[in-house]
Amino acid sequence: MALWGGRFEAGVAERTQEFGASLPVDRHLYREDIAGSKAHARMIAVQGIISQDDCDQICAGLDEIEREIEEGSFTFDIRDEDIHMAIESELTRRIGDAGKRLHTGRSRNDQVATDTRLAAKRLCRDMMTAVTGLREALISAADAHPAAILPGYTHLQHAQPVLLSHHLLAYAWMLHRDFHRLHEAYAAADASPLGAAALAGTSYPLDRWMSAHALGFSAVIPNSLDAVSDRDFLLDLQYAGSVCAMHLSRLAEEIVLWSSSEFGFVTLSDAFSTGSSIMPQKKNPDFAELIRGKTGRVYGNLVQMLVTMKGLPLAYNKDLQEDKEGMLDTADTLTRSLEVMAGMVSTATFNEDVMLKACGTGYLAATDIADYLAKRGMPFREAHAVVGHLVLTCEHRGCDLADLTLEDFKEASDLFGADIVGALDIPSIVAARMTEGGTAPEAVEQQAKLVRSTLIEEEAILKGM
Amino acid sequence: MALWGGRFEAGVAERTQEFGASLPVDRHLYREDIAGSKAHARMIAVQGIISQDDCDQICAGLDEIEREIEEGSFTFDIRDEDIHMAIESELTRRIGDAGKRLHTGRSRNDQVATDTRLAAKRLCRDMMTAVTGLREALISAADAHPAAILPGYTHLQHAQPVLLSHHLLAYAWMLHRDFHRLHEAYAAADASPLGAAALAGTSYPLDRWMSAHALGFSAVIPNSLDAVSDRDFLLDLQYAGSVCAMHLSRLAEEIVLWSSSEFGFVTLSDAFSTGSSIMPQKKNPDFAELIRGKTGRVYGNLVQMLVTMKGLPLAYNKDLQEDKEGMLDTADTLTRSLEVMAGMVSTATFNEDVMLKACGTGYLAATDIADYLAKRGMPFREAHAVVGHLVLTCEHRGCDLADLTLEDFKEASDLFGADIVGALDIPSIVAARMTEGGTAPEAVEQQAKLVRSTLIEEEAILKGM
Amino acid sequence: MALWGGRFEAGVAERTQEFGASLPVDRHLYREDIAGSKAHARMIAVQGIISQDDCDQICAGLDEIEREIEEGSFTFDIRDEDIHMAIESELTRRIGDAGKRLHTGRSRNDQVATDTRLAAKRLCRDMMTAVTGLREALISAADAHPAAILPGYTHLQHAQPVLLSHHLLAYAWMLHRDFHRLHEAYAAADASPLGAAALAGTSYPLDRWMSAHALGFSAVIPNSLDAVSDRDFLLDLQYAGSVCAMHLSRLAEEIVLWSSSEFGFVTLSDAFSTGSSIMPQKKNPDFAELIRGKTGRVYGNLVQMLVTMKGLPLAYNKDLQEDKEGMLDTADTLTRSLEVMAGMVSTATFNEDVMLKACGTGYLAATDIADYLAKRGMPFREAHAVVGHLVLTCEHRGCDLADLTLEDFKEASDLFGADIVGALDIPSIVAARMTEGGTAPEAVEQQAKLVRSTLIEEEAILKGM
Amino acid sequence: MALWGGRFEAGVAERTQEFGASLPVDRHLYREDIAGSKAHARMIAVQGIISQDDCDQICAGLDEIEREIEEGSFTFDIRDEDIHMAIESELTRRIGDAGKRLHTGRSRNDQVATDTRLAAKRLCRDMMTAVTGLREALISAADAHPAAILPGYTHLQHAQPVLLSHHLLAYAWMLHRDFHRLHEAYAAADASPLGAAALAGTSYPLDRWMSAHALGFSAVIPNSLDAVSDRDFLLDLQYAGSVCAMHLSRLAEEIVLWSSSEFGFVTLSDAFSTGSSIMPQKKNPDFAELIRGKTGRVYGNLVQMLVTMKGLPLAYNKDLQEDKEGMLDTADTLTRSLEVMAGMVSTATFNEDVMLKACGTGYLAATDIADYLAKRGMPFREAHAVVGHLVLTCEHRGCDLADLTLEDFKEASDLFGADIVGALDIPSIVAARMTEGGTAPEAVEQQAKLVRSTLIEEEAILKGM
Repeated sequence: MALWGGRFEAGVAERTQEFGASLPVDRHLYREDIAGSKAHARMIAVQGIISQDDCDQICAGLDEIEREIEEGSFTFDIRDEDIHMAIESELTRRIGDAGKRLHTGRSRNDQVATDTRLAAKRLCRDMMTAVTGLREALISAADAHPAAILPGYTHLQHAQPVLLSHHLLAYAWMLHRDFHRLHEAYAAADASPLGAAALAGTSYPLDRWMSAHALGFSAVIPNSLDAVSDRDFLLDLQYAGSVCAMHLSRLAEEIVLWSSSEFGFVTLSDAFSTGSSIMPQKKNPDFAELIRGKTGRVYGNLVQMLVTMKGLPLAYNKDLQEDKEGMLDTADTLTRSLEVMAGMVSTATFNEDVMLKACGTGYLAATDIADYLAKRGMPFREAHAVVGHLVLTCEHRGCDLADLTLEDFKEASDLFGADIVGALDIPSIVAARMTEGGTAPEAVEQQAKLVRSTLIEEEAILKGM
Repeated sequence: MALWGGRFEAGVAERTQEFGASLPVDRHLYREDIAGSKAHARMIAVQGIISQDDCDQICAGLDEIEREIEEGSFTFDIRDEDIHMAIESELTRRIGDAGKRLHTGRSRNDQVATDTRLAAKRLCRDMMTAVTGLREALISAADAHPAAILPGYTHLQHAQPVLLSHHLLAYAWMLHRDFHRLHEAYAAADASPLGAAALAGTSYPLDRWMSAHALGFSAVIPNSLDAVSDRDFLLDLQYAGSVCAMHLSRLAEEIVLWSSSEFGFVTLSDAFSTGSSIMPQKKNPDFAELIRGKTGRVYGNLVQMLVTMKGLPLAYNKDLQEDKEGMLDTADTLTRSLEVMAGMVSTATFNEDVMLKACGTGYLAATDIADYLAKRGMPFREAHAVVGHLVLTCEHRGCDLADLTLEDFKEASDLFGADIVGALDIPSIVAARMTEGGTAPEAVEQQAKLVRSTLIEEEAILKGM
Repeated sequence: MALWGGRFEAGVAERTQEFGASLPVDRHLYREDIAGSKAHARMIAVQGIISQDDCDQICAGLDEIEREIEEGSFTFDIRDEDIHMAIESELTRRIGDAGKRLHTGRSRNDQVATDTRLAAKRLCRDMMTAVTGLREALISAADAHPAAILPGYTHLQHAQPVLLSHHLLAYAWMLHRDFHRLHEAYAAADASPLGAAALAGTSYPLDRWMSAHALGFSAVIPNSLDAVSDRDFLLDLQYAGSVCAMHLSRLAEEIVLWSSSEFGFVTLSDAFSTGSSIMPQKKNPDFAELIRGKTGRVYGNLVQMLVTMKGLPLAYNKDLQEDKEGMLDTADTLTRSLEVMAGMVSTATFNEDVMLKACGTGYLAATDIADYLAKRGMPFREAHAVVGHLVLTCEHRGCDLADLTLEDFKEASDLFGADIVGALDIPSIVAARMTEGGTAPEAVEQQAKLVRSTLIEEEAILKGM
Repeated sequence: MALWGGRFEAGVAERTQEFGASLPVDRHLYREDIAGSKAHARMIAVQGIISQDDCDQICAGLDEIEREIEEGSFTFDIRDEDIHMAIESELTRRIGDAGKRLHTGRSRNDQVATDTRLAAKRLCRDMMTAVTGLREALISAADAHPAAILPGYTHLQHAQPVLLSHHLLAYAWMLHRDFHRLHEAYAAADASPLGAAALAGTSYPLDRWMSAHALGFSAVIPNSLDAVSDRDFLLDLQYAGSVCAMHLSRLAEEIVLWSSSEFGFVTLSDAFSTGSSIMPQKKNPDFAELIRGKTGRVYGNLVQMLVTMKGLPLAYNKDLQEDKEGMLDTADTLTRSLEVMAGMVSTATFNEDVMLKACGTGYLAATDIADYLAKRGMPFREAHAVVGHLVLTCEHRGCDLADLTLEDFKEASDLFGADIVGALDIPSIVAARMTEGGTAPEAVEQQAKLVRSTLIEEEAILKGM
């Protein structure tokens, strides 16, 4: 059905039509489109713009179409250009004039914005649920290994020993911020454009709040030009997704590192590993790599949308049709990546002995020896230099700091006493870092309480959405 | 001063050192660095980690250095690698051992995160102030032209007439969202990493809340690994900046269009135009184009930071040094673009007569004629087709809809009556769109009240920051 | 079929498997995969690694499978993970042991690189053909309007009059560079990785040149690690596509501008326009907007791949699986955008009278008047200032330069003589710009010859590919 | 000096002017600007457009200014907006009317395009030189360790043993492609826009080839509109830089991995390492991390320029002013990164014994055992499964394949004979991969000859530039 046929003398060639059609993408929004049309029909019936009978026919017809789409028995025709026309034209074929009245006081411009906002809300909710799921997996893994110690790294060099639980909770915090960002994107989408019509509002006595509330929107958009041309909420979604993908790429990188022969800190479940077509021994952290690799896709979708929006004059321009594919792709990619990552973390074996053994190399006690001197009065910068020379001694001898004798220490500074040995014990080093947010078991337990409270908070938000 | 000299046998070649130095960029953060050091010194003095006398010397020395930097008499040495060492080494040269104690219980990792967060907060505030400034300019311009009507466009084709004030307020709403996003970025930066030390916390009895409050932070970051490796707040800043730049690019595009010979809707002040080196007649909307062009720079900074963060294992990695240049550039670009745009809008002349005349072409009344028929019982889709044929008639005759006779109308449909003439009057068309958010003068006046209330809200937020 | 089953104790959960599967994307490469397998089988048969009989069975089996895929009767199973296993496992089901020997001396790593390179070559050829097609349309349009003059713009302000043909040929030159870039991408893909096996080569006596030549590759990749991990050729493809998309966005922008009421320079064919669901009068340049909007998608694909490749250690990593979807999307988007644009240009009506009339405003003769003075001895900078004042006079009077009297000119400078009138005639101004590459008809005719020779060159390249 | 003052009534406010000024960036192009002006002056003198005396004064004046800029005694004034006006206005102040004649037959539009192209050529040359330098360092390192063997990785898991030299040469090939791409960017910049004037050519009898040749350009751009609006050559430069940065990020990632405690394959020179402000033991691969981190910056510059160019109508728009900062930054970043990387590679110690020892874990012989069976008649897919089970046996026993007895092997398949032991020796495994491009010493020596010939080729190209 050509919805704008009257003014045209020639048809659009098929191949061109296919190029312009958004149907292959926006058919995924059929539920939102039908819900939007029903809400609109009911509102204009209440306002006396169409009859109640027309409204009833419209709603019944739409319900039938929805059922057929869900069953897979509905046939889409690319000539319908988009999901809106695919449904409206079929509706009109079935119910006649009532169908032709559905579009009264509405334009595709506000209709498509409505559908997209409803879908964005749903997709944000899906991603938020998956974020909370991964957070639960991380917190459980942290709980399950309260005493495990591994080398903390800076510059991928051994720095200071840390609790595995502390390390895992760092990711739980990152993901908490992701939850918040996705919630912001949800809120940005949560206002109704219906009633903005093409760009200027309409002369029909619409009740915009009625259709907004029927669709679960918290507000109506207060400017009709903005209502049809704003896609900030999609950018918000894609940005929130991009930061979340970045966080996942960091965790994935660590899983790849930790499951290498060289690190050996973690053994992935076979269910989250794959093999090689040629090398029989291989057990690859494919899913971690794939999650890391998909960061590019999510960033790319953000860039796509930013570029598409650049420099567009008001109000609606066809460029905006490019808004939905990236939204669907980012949400699907993220939701699945989060779920797979949660499964991977939940089923992984953390090799505590390997981690602890790794703490024996790399002079992890160096900072604490410097602090030992500083606490006995040597300015920190000088203490730092003294310990630097001790490390160099170890390097030349091929040993670790724990292998030095008391004489070695005393030679470096006479502030050293026999109690220096205590400063070299890895669990003691960890236990000493009791500052708030530090890696001492007590501090981490405090932190874990805080983390768990954010989980409860998130679940409450999800329940209320 | 080589702060990590003890362990090393050979010096770093000068050119390499220069490559690694962040001083040319992070020297812009000297205020934050000094404030952070003073807060740290005072806290560790209160906690008994250094003496009060050391603390006093440190604070006095830092004040002196700050004064000299502001006066331009302080000499930076690239060998100092970064602003932290430039200041600390000079401090130690001046006050001796007390200076060497400043770094007790602190690492450059938490120090640089603190500086960057303080700077991010300041820059967000600057951008938010500039956003509010442009919003004021737009609202004033809207207020000054309550009756001006121009063609509303979709696809850059004449669609329906709209009030100029309605059009300008659309941008005021976009910018309100920008204000909110920048405020979110501000909030993301508003937590103190001080006390996280290198990555694991420290064994000194720090009071993290004391230094946090002294620096105006609302919270302390609850995980030390996250504290030194998180840069989400910078991404938030750059994302908020990117969307704002996108909005500016849309407004800039319209200013470029409107100041062309073909449109002629606006005449820019000479103060916001430039000429040509070869063509004496040119008066170019250079600043609008430049603002539009700078969108690329702001997007590029966002991409830079997203790419840099991808796949980094915990905790601190040197890659993070690349975080500040983009932050400074985006904030500077945005703040200035917003200010220049505000000046441009405030001083522009809107040519109301040209705008109104443009409404006489492009069949702007078409929707209203279709609505006329629909209100008289014809299904909207049929009405749409009838008017499509009337437009085609006009095209063939080379006239507008207002030039058709009543006979022409009646021939198309006998639902037309003599009152159709009213549906063709541009101000009447505008006045009829009274739906909430529509372009009717009364609706826009309601909307303007809402906009003004957001201005008050923003000013309150800025005052409280 | 689990191709790496031996080493594993547990199966991969279905949902995870689906996440890891590339089949939905790489099934589009079935032709390349089958061609690659046949070339490999024939080569290892000639080298005596498998028997000729095995080879014959393999080739016959693969031909059969290819036929079934093309007919749509082949059933893909997501558990096969990728196109390589989908085909190999079905082949083995059909022909038994011979099928299990196909993978001798090969790995999926070199196999997938081979498939991807073959596909990249095909897609580059498609895009190059479409580029040449659009160039032909532009050159034909230029040829068809040899005398049409429109205002040349800088800063979207009238600058100097130019020939329409000159303007259209500017795009023909841009697209010539695109052809070259795509050809470079083609050349980058044109080397065979087959024989690199997993990453290190194999101990089988392969003849890499034999399989390379059978597949139409010009070379073999000289380093096996590079062979399996290099994706530069895909970046080249996506970059070439991005610049081409950018060029199209510029042309699309001009078409949108030119088909507005305000410009009116071009009327698009109905076949390349669409209407509005609510506004019966609308005739929108949708396809130009859509092409412009798709720039974001193509840029996004480039960014995706750059991000995915960042920081990957050698050799193959699963991240690389993300390489094909963007390639297919960019090539499809570009090829179709170029074809649609060619159709749009070919069928557009250029309104020569409207263009010429537009030259009467905007002081297009200003530069020539300044040159008039400069040629009579006044330093150019002074002449520029004199004409600037004349323009200001016109602005105040509301007239154009052609409306000034000889007295007006003489008052501004006594170098002006009666012959100044000639300097104000638009066709004369155009005709005077006879520098090579200038807009004078003779210069443009010279240029057109050059352009046409590049068309012949491109066609020769395409024929040879 | 206001070069377009005549037409304007009011001045541009200082802050706005500063926003519009490109001087802080384009002052880096002063050499190119002066060279371009001299070439133009000499050509228009030869063509009789200005006198030889004017030309001599202009050239002498420009030489003097160039000298002063190089000495640092030239004072730039931000009010001059750009480098072109800064120089021209000072020239005119010094030599009077002759200076005012310099701009005859020229516009800033073709002038700035000329300067930018000259600079792009210089910067490409710099980067190409640095690329060749790093290639030399890699080849030297490969030559210095002909027998070193390390585990080859896929998915960061041990895959098959490879020669270190083979691994290093993989990067030499990547960089060879970078050299080619930079050369392409150089070629794209190598055509003169001079003579295009503002956008349309000029009416002066210019000899465009004369000025082109004087400036070392190989061609003149054949379309004046394209000449002033084309920035493809900058995109080419930034794209070539982006791929090169990506390659560097991969090498940097490996250096970071290899210099970790866990890998220990490489020890960086102290000259290319740094320490920690708090942890005395740290020796960090800072420069490798920084090079990896700077990938973001280079990608960001590419995105910036792509975004800026999107949707710009012809011909010159002020947006294009944003073209130079990214070019300078990318070139500087790349050149320095390449140089630092060359230094790092040249001075690094490769720990051959550690590498070889690492080959003892991870079942690196697995593929060869499968090939052993396949060569004795077992279909490869079955052989793969048999070895998979052997690996599982090793996992359960906690041993490597070399620790299995002949009985173990025979139990798995009776095709195994006593000669299986030979298949387990790491150097033998490496030596067997003799396919072209494989990792066998002989194959690598052949490959190295090819690599060295590309070095000679590159040096010849650099000499000819």
